Amino acid sequence: MASSTHPCAPCAACKFLRRKCIQGCVFSPYFPPEDPTKFANVHKIFGASNVSKLLNEIAPHQREDAVNSLAYEAEARLKDPVYGCVGAISVLQRQVLRLQKELDATNADLIRFSSHQNILTPSSQSSGSSVQNAHVLPPNYGSYSWNYNA
Amino acid sequence: MASSTHPCAPCAACKFLRRKCIQGCVFSPYFPPEDPTKFANVHKIFGASNVSKLLNEIAPHQREDAVNSLAYEAEARLKDPVYGCVGAISVLQRQVLRLQKELDATNADLIRFSSHQNILTPSSQSSGSSVQNAHVLPPNYGSYSWNYNA
Repeated sequence: MASSTHPCAPCAACKFLRRKCIQGCVFSPYFPPEDPTKFANVHKIFGASNVSKLLNEIAPHQREDAVNSLAYEAEARLKDPVYGCVGAISVLQRQVLRLQKELDATNADLIRFSSHQNILTPSSQSSGSSVQNAHVLPPNYGSYSWNYNA
Repeated sequence: MASSTHPCAPCAACKFLRRKCIQGCVFSPYFPPEDPTKFANVHKIFGASNVSKLLNEIAPHQREDAVNSLAYEAEARLKDPVYGCVGAISVLQRQVLRLQKELDATNADLIRFSSHQNILTPSSQSSGSSVQNAHVLPPNYGSYSWNYNA
């Protein structure tokens, strides 16, 4: 059965790859023709074939999020070829550790003050309880977990 | 000029790609034969050709970091095909915002206590000054910046 071409303009992926944009093109909903850079970036970093395979393995309602996260990663890798978006993870991890340390110190000060005064305000109580939930670092990807000390 | 094969065992990349591992193989220093999964993951997500191109564009002393960050991203994408390591960025961003909010509330409490007592301890002063530096979120990658509200 011959596939019919797409009724509208070809998507950015098919235009880039110089091929017909057929009905049901897996790229078409996520790579509109007016944003050619989005596909060019994703293609340069991941390759069209890998992206197509990935999309076909994902439920349709999650494909937009998948494409956007791939576009984010691709743009990050083009801006920073060495660290890509792992650089942002590293910045954020250090920021979380620094904030946690500051919060612990500030809570210790508050506890010291309140033990002198025997007063605990509602906001200091809420800060204290959520400190215990703050050590939720992102998943550790086995032996390739990121330890970036720059 | 014929390239000579690598004197040791072929690297994981050449073994995976079933080709000779020649002297000066761009993959060899970063994909040792005893860790075949590292290359398999990177190959599945980025493709050997893209990784090879990327490595050739990067200074030799930065290639190890580049390969490790690619391996981290690849493993994250295999574990979470929809969000990949952008999921970790999202978790960390929310964590930074929550900690910052808690720290602001705790500092406000401390300021209230200290204005009653007219006392500022060294640790509360240091917490207060660094609050102003805490809003350093990772770079915003243009239109593909990540807004994940799950």
